Amino acid sequence: MTNDEVIRANTDNLMSKYWSDAIKRLTPYVPGEQPKESGITKLNTNENPYPPSPKAAAVINGFDTAKLRLYSDPDCTQLKDSLAEHFAVERKNVFVGNGSDEVLAHTFAAFFQQDHPLLLPEFTYSFYPVYCNLFDIAYQQVPLGDEFKLNLDDYSQPNGGIIFANPNAPTSRAIELGEIETLLTRNTESVVVVDEAYVDFGAQSAIELTKRFDNLLVIQTFSKSRSLAGMRVGYAIGHEDLISGLECVKNSFNSYPLDMLAIESCSAAIQDTAYFEETTQKIISTREWTAERLSELGFINLPSKTNFLFSRHRFLEAAELMGYLRSKKILVRYFSKPGIDNYLRISIGTQEEMQLFIDTLEQHPDLLKL
Amino acid sequence: MTNDEVIRANTDNLMSKYWSDAIKRLTPYVPGEQPKESGITKLNTNENPYPPSPKAAAVINGFDTAKLRLYSDPDCTQLKDSLAEHFAVERKNVFVGNGSDEVLAHTFAAFFQQDHPLLLPEFTYSFYPVYCNLFDIAYQQVPLGDEFKLNLDDYSQPNGGIIFANPNAPTSRAIELGEIETLLTRNTESVVVVDEAYVDFGAQSAIELTKRFDNLLVIQTFSKSRSLAGMRVGYAIGHEDLISGLECVKNSFNSYPLDMLAIESCSAAIQDTAYFEETTQKIISTREWTAERLSELGFINLPSKTNFLFSRHRFLEAAELMGYLRSKKILVRYFSKPGIDNYLRISIGTQEEMQLFIDTLEQHPDLLKL
Repeated sequence: MTNDEVIRANTDNLMSKYWSDAIKRLTPYVPGEQPKESGITKLNTNENPYPPSPKAAAVINGFDTAKLRLYSDPDCTQLKDSLAEHFAVERKNVFVGNGSDEVLAHTFAAFFQQDHPLLLPEFTYSFYPVYCNLFDIAYQQVPLGDEFKLNLDDYSQPNGGIIFANPNAPTSRAIELGEIETLLTRNTESVVVVDEAYVDFGAQSAIELTKRFDNLLVIQTFSKSRSLAGMRVGYAIGHEDLISGLECVKNSFNSYPLDMLAIESCSAAIQDTAYFEETTQKIISTREWTAERLSELGFINLPSKTNFLFSRHRFLEAAELMGYLRSKKILVRYFSKPGIDNYLRISIGTQEEMQLFIDTLEQHPDLLKL
Repeated sequence: MTNDEVIRANTDNLMSKYWSDAIKRLTPYVPGEQPKESGITKLNTNENPYPPSPKAAAVINGFDTAKLRLYSDPDCTQLKDSLAEHFAVERKNVFVGNGSDEVLAHTFAAFFQQDHPLLLPEFTYSFYPVYCNLFDIAYQQVPLGDEFKLNLDDYSQPNGGIIFANPNAPTSRAIELGEIETLLTRNTESVVVVDEAYVDFGAQSAIELTKRFDNLLVIQTFSKSRSLAGMRVGYAIGHEDLISGLECVKNSFNSYPLDMLAIESCSAAIQDTAYFEETTQKIISTREWTAERLSELGFINLPSKTNFLFSRHRFLEAAELMGYLRSKKILVRYFSKPGIDNYLRISIGTQEEMQLFIDTLEQHPDLLKL
C-alpha cells in the first residue's frame, strides 16, 4: 500500500484488532511525491539536480558483487573513518545510519525520552513530531520570529532536549554559529541536536562545537549536497558518549542498516571534495538567479541558505500556483499547514530546469495580466 | 566503536547522563564476527558460500548511477511486485524492510506490545529478547522438547503473540506445516510470526497459510538462500491488515529504508529461480555430506533443514573445538548459553570449505587419539 493509503487507512480507523495500542495512535510522515511517469520537472523533494560523484559511481559499477553473499560491516568502519578524516574528528565521534531519518529516529529514542518536553521550532522538518509520537515524547513547538527567523533565546526554559534544523526547513533560513554557541553555554543539561541536512548550501556547520560541548549532536546526510538520496545514508557527529548511546539503540534494532554498496560509495563520495564544491556552487548560483527572477515576478523569497527557496507571491495563492505548475508537469512542494499555507517550497534544479520553471510561471494567466 | 565495545560500555554502566532512561537498560544484540583479515574460512554467520544471482550482479554493475540523486521509491513497488508474483500473493500482502532484522523490529512494535506476554522458544534467534527489551514487551520463553524439538502444543496459553523460527536457529530443526496450522486454528486472538530465514534449505513455508489465517505473518530474507546478506533486504507476507500495521510503523520511523540498488537487485534475484535452485541444492548436498563426516568423527548432529549444522561431540567440548578451529583460521559460532553451550553452529560453505573443515577436525590431537 502507498503512503497515502496508509494515512487514509489510519485516519479512517481501519485498524486490525491485532495492532498494538501504541501503533493505533500513530500518524506516519508523508514524504514528497516520487512520480513514476517521465517528463516531470521535479522541484518538490530537495533532491540535487546533479549526479553523484563519478568516484561513487565507479565504486558501484565496478563492485565485486560476489562479496554481497557476506554481511556488511555492522560497524561501517570504512565509512566512519572517511567521515572522521573529512571532519577532523575521531571514529568514536561518528555514527552512521540508513539516511538521516534513521539517525534522527535513533536520536529521539536515545536522548529525548525525558521528563521535560522536547523543544522544537513551530515550523520545521515535519518528521520531528512523528518521532515524538512514535516514542511517546512530549514536545513543545516554539514560535518562530518575524519572517520565520529562529531565535534561540526562546529556548531558555526547562526541556528534555532541543532540536532544530540549521538551515531550517521548509523556511530555508540559517542562523549564525555564535547563536548556537550561546545556546549551548546556557543549555547544559539536555542534548541539543542541530539537523544540518542543508548546511552545505551556504550555512555554517556546528561540527567544530561538538569538540567543546558534550551535549551537542550534529546530523548530516548524503541525500542533498552529495547527490545520493537514492543510497540512504546519514550520519551524526558528537561526543563519544552520545555516539555510544546511538550505537546502543541501533544495535538493539538492526545490526547492519547500511549495505556494502552504501558504505563504499558514500566513503568515496565524501572524499571527492572538488566535485562537491563544483556542484554545490552551481546550485547556489542557480538559487540566487532563481530568487532574482521570482522577485521580478512578484514573489517574496525568504533569504535561503539551502538548495530550495521558500517563497510566496504578493497577490497569487500558493495552492493555486502549485496546481498550475503541476498542470504544466512541474512539481513543487506545498504545505497546507496554517501559517505557511501561502508559501511554495521550490527545490533548486539545474539552470535549465529553473529557466523552464520561470518561463512557465511567466505564462500564468494572472501574471500575464499584471 | 565496535559492537563489542558498545556491549562493554553498556555492561560497565559507562553511560552518559544524557541518555534516555529506557536506553540505559538495553543490552544490544551481538552479531557474528565479520573478520577483516583474509585467509579465514568463515562458517560462523550462516552466509551463503555462492555469489548472488548473475542477474542481480548485472543490475549493480550496469546501474545508471545518475538516478541516485533522487530518493528511492518509499513504497518499493517494484520489489513488492516481484515478491508478490513469486509467492502468488498480492502487493498489499507484502512488506519489505532493511533486512529481516528491521522487519522483525517493526513487527515487535506493531503487534507484540500487548497485555499478555509474547511466547517464544527457549532457544531461538537471540535478537527476539533484544527487541522485547527495546519495546518493553513482556515475554515468556517456552522450553523445547527432546533434542530441542519445537512442540507447538506448549503454546496453548494466554499470550500477546507467538514467534518462532522454522527451521529454528540455532537448532536447525524444522516442524511440519500441519503443526503450524493446528496452532493457528487454536490461537486466533494474537499474531503468530513464523521467521523463515532458513526455510529454503529443506523446510516447508507457511506462506500459503497466510491466505487462510489473518493473524499469521511469515518473514523471510535475501541474506541466506539468495546470497545477498550484504544488500540488507528482508520481507514479510501476511494479511493486508497486518501489512498496513507494519507500514504505519515503518512510515513513522524511516520513509525510505531500501536504497535503489537494494530494490532493483533483489527484484532481479527473486526472479532467478534456476540459479536459486541450483545453489540451494548444492548447499543441501554439502550439508548432508558434512553431517555424515561429522558423525564418523564422533559428532551428534541435530537433523538440519538449514544451511548450518548444530552439532556436539560425544567427548570433546564445543568451546575447546571452537578455539582449535579458530587457531586454524576456521570460524564457527559458539553460544555460551547454558543448555546449548556444548554445541557448535557450523555454517555450510562450499564443498571445498567443508572438506577443509573436516580435514582440520581430523587433525585435532584428541581426535587423532580416538
